[in-house]
Amino acid sequence: MVQLLEIKDTKDWFQVAASLSQELQENAVARDSQAGLPDYEINRLRKSGLLPLVVPQEYGGIGGNWVEALKIVFQLSQADGSIGQLYGNHLNLVALAHVSGTSEQKERYYRETAAHNLFWANAINTRDTRLKITRDGEDFRVNGVKSFGTGIAVADLRVFSALQDGVEVPLIFVIPKDREGLVSQQDWNNFGQRRTDSDTFTFHNVLVKRNEVLGIDNPSDNAFATFLGIIAQLTKVYVYLGIAKGAFKAAKNYTQNNSKPWITSGVSSATQDPYILHHYGELWTELKAAIALADQASVKVQAAWDKDVNLTLQERGEVAIAVFAAKAFATKVGLNVTNRIFELMGTRSTATKYGFDRYWRDLRTFTLHDPVDYKLKDIGNWVLNRELPTVTQYS
Amino acid sequence: MVQLLEIKDTKDWFQVAASLSQELQENAVARDSQAGLPDYEINRLRKSGLLPLVVPQEYGGIGGNWVEALKIVFQLSQADGSIGQLYGNHLNLVALAHVSGTSEQKERYYRETAAHNLFWANAINTRDTRLKITRDGEDFRVNGVKSFGTGIAVADLRVFSALQDGVEVPLIFVIPKDREGLVSQQDWNNFGQRRTDSDTFTFHNVLVKRNEVLGIDNPSDNAFATFLGIIAQLTKVYVYLGIAKGAFKAAKNYTQNNSKPWITSGVSSATQDPYILHHYGELWTELKAAIALADQASVKVQAAWDKDVNLTLQERGEVAIAVFAAKAFATKVGLNVTNRIFELMGTRSTATKYGFDRYWRDLRTFTLHDPVDYKLKDIGNWVLNRELPTVTQYS
Amino acid sequence: MVQLLEIKDTKDWFQVAASLSQELQENAVARDSQAGLPDYEINRLRKSGLLPLVVPQEYGGIGGNWVEALKIVFQLSQADGSIGQLYGNHLNLVALAHVSGTSEQKERYYRETAAHNLFWANAINTRDTRLKITRDGEDFRVNGVKSFGTGIAVADLRVFSALQDGVEVPLIFVIPKDREGLVSQQDWNNFGQRRTDSDTFTFHNVLVKRNEVLGIDNPSDNAFATFLGIIAQLTKVYVYLGIAKGAFKAAKNYTQNNSKPWITSGVSSATQDPYILHHYGELWTELKAAIALADQASVKVQAAWDKDVNLTLQERGEVAIAVFAAKAFATKVGLNVTNRIFELMGTRSTATKYGFDRYWRDLRTFTLHDPVDYKLKDIGNWVLNRELPTVTQYS
Amino acid sequence: MVQLLEIKDTKDWFQVAASLSQELQENAVARDSQAGLPDYEINRLRKSGLLPLVVPQEYGGIGGNWVEALKIVFQLSQADGSIGQLYGNHLNLVALAHVSGTSEQKERYYRETAAHNLFWANAINTRDTRLKITRDGEDFRVNGVKSFGTGIAVADLRVFSALQDGVEVPLIFVIPKDREGLVSQQDWNNFGQRRTDSDTFTFHNVLVKRNEVLGIDNPSDNAFATFLGIIAQLTKVYVYLGIAKGAFKAAKNYTQNNSKPWITSGVSSATQDPYILHHYGELWTELKAAIALADQASVKVQAAWDKDVNLTLQERGEVAIAVFAAKAFATKVGLNVTNRIFELMGTRSTATKYGFDRYWRDLRTFTLHDPVDYKLKDIGNWVLNRELPTVTQYS
Repeated sequence: MVQLLEIKDTKDWFQVAASLSQELQENAVARDSQAGLPDYEINRLRKSGLLPLVVPQEYGGIGGNWVEALKIVFQLSQADGSIGQLYGNHLNLVALAHVSGTSEQKERYYRETAAHNLFWANAINTRDTRLKITRDGEDFRVNGVKSFGTGIAVADLRVFSALQDGVEVPLIFVIPKDREGLVSQQDWNNFGQRRTDSDTFTFHNVLVKRNEVLGIDNPSDNAFATFLGIIAQLTKVYVYLGIAKGAFKAAKNYTQNNSKPWITSGVSSATQDPYILHHYGELWTELKAAIALADQASVKVQAAWDKDVNLTLQERGEVAIAVFAAKAFATKVGLNVTNRIFELMGTRSTATKYGFDRYWRDLRTFTLHDPVDYKLKDIGNWVLNRELPTVTQYS
Repeated sequence: MVQLLEIKDTKDWFQVAASLSQELQENAVARDSQAGLPDYEINRLRKSGLLPLVVPQEYGGIGGNWVEALKIVFQLSQADGSIGQLYGNHLNLVALAHVSGTSEQKERYYRETAAHNLFWANAINTRDTRLKITRDGEDFRVNGVKSFGTGIAVADLRVFSALQDGVEVPLIFVIPKDREGLVSQQDWNNFGQRRTDSDTFTFHNVLVKRNEVLGIDNPSDNAFATFLGIIAQLTKVYVYLGIAKGAFKAAKNYTQNNSKPWITSGVSSATQDPYILHHYGELWTELKAAIALADQASVKVQAAWDKDVNLTLQERGEVAIAVFAAKAFATKVGLNVTNRIFELMGTRSTATKYGFDRYWRDLRTFTLHDPVDYKLKDIGNWVLNRELPTVTQYS
Repeated sequence: MVQLLEIKDTKDWFQVAASLSQELQENAVARDSQAGLPDYEINRLRKSGLLPLVVPQEYGGIGGNWVEALKIVFQLSQADGSIGQLYGNHLNLVALAHVSGTSEQKERYYRETAAHNLFWANAINTRDTRLKITRDGEDFRVNGVKSFGTGIAVADLRVFSALQDGVEVPLIFVIPKDREGLVSQQDWNNFGQRRTDSDTFTFHNVLVKRNEVLGIDNPSDNAFATFLGIIAQLTKVYVYLGIAKGAFKAAKNYTQNNSKPWITSGVSSATQDPYILHHYGELWTELKAAIALADQASVKVQAAWDKDVNLTLQERGEVAIAVFAAKAFATKVGLNVTNRIFELMGTRSTATKYGFDRYWRDLRTFTLHDPVDYKLKDIGNWVLNRELPTVTQYS
Repeated sequence: MVQLLEIKDTKDWFQVAASLSQELQENAVARDSQAGLPDYEINRLRKSGLLPLVVPQEYGGIGGNWVEALKIVFQLSQADGSIGQLYGNHLNLVALAHVSGTSEQKERYYRETAAHNLFWANAINTRDTRLKITRDGEDFRVNGVKSFGTGIAVADLRVFSALQDGVEVPLIFVIPKDREGLVSQQDWNNFGQRRTDSDTFTFHNVLVKRNEVLGIDNPSDNAFATFLGIIAQLTKVYVYLGIAKGAFKAAKNYTQNNSKPWITSGVSSATQDPYILHHYGELWTELKAAIALADQASVKVQAAWDKDVNLTLQERGEVAIAVFAAKAFATKVGLNVTNRIFELMGTRSTATKYGFDRYWRDLRTFTLHDPVDYKLKDIGNWVLNRELPTVTQYS
């Protein structure tokens, strides 16, 4: 009755993630306050061994599937939304050549990531059309500007999209950290996800080699080639859920240890207040429901992934709908949790030293990535008219 | 990472349920309007072969587990909330002697149910304390009144609770349909779940034989003995979800075929209206989340069931919390769906001939069974204080 | 700082309305169940003297303003949504010739209404285009079909809209009860507002005299001519609020007298339950806010009414926005109140004898009159772009 | 039908407040970021002439009533929640001796405030019981600690509560800025209302003169003596509403000028997006309703104020209920507005330079002042049981 994956035991890696999450939790408030480059976090991540998580074992990786990978994104995001986003992006990018590169590129990038413990970052964002790529003999040159370069500054491999003159579909390419001509404008200063360093980058005649352009000469036109966009959507969902769960746990700990009972409550401890108990019941229930919905979607994502190039557009679209539902719901629940936890803690919980507002700031910022209203419209259009979502970078 | 049951193929019985659901759907509006005895429905159910669904195969039954059984309750409830409730109660009662009877009773009632295709109903409701049981030699006599005798009038086996003088814990007994002295007051006339015939019954010196009292001489005091109350809570959840899904499907069909676009919408079909699409997206998402949460709980219920008398109070309590969350959430979502579908259909959808209000009436009535506020409080108390819910008929 | 009307004392008429409301409350459940013609209600209304409420005193009427009139609609609707709708429609129609008739028609209909204590009803609904009007010498003949003829069967004066061949804007005319050729299809059978008798009517060559066509030869094209549509929208709001307040009062009475405390609540009376108190606090607050918003709009409506033909399109549009806000909010709050009261009362409150579901059924039905989504869009369009709503029958 | 105050024209002072609000808006983001002492703001406020707003004209003040005063609090709060809170507290404290002082104190403090353009601040907070007052001859000495001294550091007159040994009810006293022995711990560092400087203060044998203790020798025990607590609650409501309206206006301006239409929206401007329009319609409607409810309460507050010492406990309690409803509703609506505006603006609106998160941070912080749940419970208890709220500092 229920379709299931057989998931192999990766207990060790969960333990690694749990430890890293614990460690990152400890100075998360200070890092949020400081903003700036996530160098500390990426170093810790690199040392943890988690970078090659989704590299198949045949290429020297851990061979985690997406269900497992997203649980680890969830774990890290509980400590810190920024590292959750950076690591989630990384996992998606590690698999990018698999879906849209040549088979040579797929193998090469998988092997290199595992062999050299590489960290990936990107500024693909196709709504920003200011980056231009032109032929230069066998190779290419890139000029212009690209915004939202999340984590680019600390990445070993950097992925961008750029437009060719007169061609609608952008080229996507991967360049190493030491490639010349790339300058950060260091302009990421936002109230949430402050340690993602999502700067704008300026390109001055940057060289892109032929084999660094994904799918060059042989661009994929199958449904699988764009499926990573759907996985990326679900990856965001697990970051959202992680932030929300982090907020919930922090609030619970505070209520247990710091909150005072209200003067007319008639109870001797805030943990016995009927309204506080009720609110915890509500938020916990909503959060469980959101996680359950995301977990269903992640099983579908993995099943679709296993079909590889045989994935049909219909199958891709149906998984997208499940992912969109998980996203819309996690957004709603997460905003509710990160907003309402303060009512469960009381006035003094707003002290800057606790940093409890960072959960709302991080989630509020990251959930604006693309509008949930259109995700809900896409779902309605599928439910009512059986029309699949238009294939875009976001859907 | 994910705990799963291996569930055997019961495809045939799902097909049977789907056919029966389809059949009951066709005259559901007329039966709702008429109210009265659910004789037609119980006859159809009896003929379907679904009555011994949870009787283990070793006793001649189908051997369905709770995950499967609740999916069938969900299926039938989509057509008609009343039959969903009646069948759900029946499944719970079939297993009642298993948890709280002697081993002889467990075997006897399982075997009889399967052999004679018996239908069960009850009026256990312990809040109504007007029914009294007294010793009469080896056996017992029962006098007084009991309300909410859901489906009793059409049941082959009838379960009641009654109080002994000076004893707090009630006795629960099972009597056959032909037992003398039992009179229905035929007073069930409520706006929802109208075909459940939940009448008050008056007992005039009704004989109850010694071996009809569950657990006589050897009452169970383990956690498993009260675990059926938790299963009964989850069974209600699947009725709620079934009603909500039935409403959603009915609305969708109406919007597709009957709704007109609004005059200032700028679209030529109601199915293209941006707000209608958005609402369908929202309701579908909520419903999916509620089903996902219930499905997680049902897996936990089955795992606990498999532990039988080894189930600990701690395990029982933790499953209860999962079930309560599913219940609170299904209640909220179901009321929202059954209330808001009309906005997706328009004015003319309120015609009595469609009977679309029955979904709200049924759900509104049945979700009052016991207050959701205390379920949420129980969850909060567990989350915050790690205290398990008090064991009652409802928790 | 606050603009106010000086409102004259009409205390007597409020007392009359309160008495009538009390009287109608007493058999409202029975009438809802029976449905059919609202003859009893209209007779009671006629005898109350409230029919000429908005007829100016110079024409022999009571001279109530809209603020007062809508408070009386609110009062009656608390007892019975159907009579609220019928009376509200009546008040609007009494003033119809004032805004869109000739000055002779304005005077004539005001005087006749007061002199003969006339009751008005209509089927204007311009979305139904099946009624055709053609010249017949000086006069007209009408043929075809018109739906939603709310209260037409019991009305002394009947207002319809019909289309001329090749003309987009319909003609609106008023005919007396005894005019030949009009047949009710007696097809109003809906789950809410059951005593409004909103039947479809068939016209067989029905005579319409020249001076029965409103604004004949001299149709108004000013903003005031369509302002009654905005008043009609606010009139519905007061019916919604009345239904919601009726539900709230009924629930309160039930909780006070019938509800039992929950077994694990630790309180001895349902009226001391912390969650029940909280819910009452929430619903009362919402209802107060919705009434406050409507009351603000009614002051604006009256101020606009006082400008008569000098009302500008800009002023009309801004009042419309205030009315739409009141409508959207009353709809949301009212549905919440009529849905959730059951949680404050408990299981037994669903007994048919109480008829508490009629509040939700009435409100759910009547709030579908025209979609709230487009009211909210109109508000947003005004707030963001300073664009006024398109003038239609509904806006 | 509607009870109204005749409110005199104070147009000039509204203009003054509007100008000041505009001025404070301009550097609000920078001040929020900087936190620290609100010296700039208080200087601007002092120069504006608004400090003696509620001092009656007979004592040399402006003579504004509470309806007017709260509208000005609302106006300033739109620019900056901190100054709204500081000014609102000031207005309340100006009137403190009126309700709980001797008649000499009432007159003296009114006159001094007007004559010397004084700014008031306080740390009354009775939940913090660490401040002790003892007799010292005719006068008193104060030692200990008091938290939440909002604006004390920049105030001319400072109000505190302190406990006498063995006496439950605290004494409240007013001391001038230059009184020796008072040290700020400069520990206010919270994520919202950052410029209120709500530090903890340590008292080292601070002298309090006999006539600085409010109501000394002659403490009031009438309902009016505690009525300022209710006004203070409503004052907070107008700060909440001001913050919410400030957020709404900022978002509107951003959407109009900066937001981009979504790629699959099919519209050429974000201001035409059907969902963005709908959301603006919803938020505007909620905000209007919340303001309408607060405005009703402010009229009741002023009517009660006018009764002075004749105010009964029953009247006080009923006004409190109206104020609590306004507070609960403003809290809910304000949190929704300040949270959801980002969905109307898009990703780039999270840039720190805009400071749009300050609205949520300020409101989230200040709405925790005392728990809304107990306000709703108090309302429910009044609605259901006609019991008035317990008189406390908060109710």
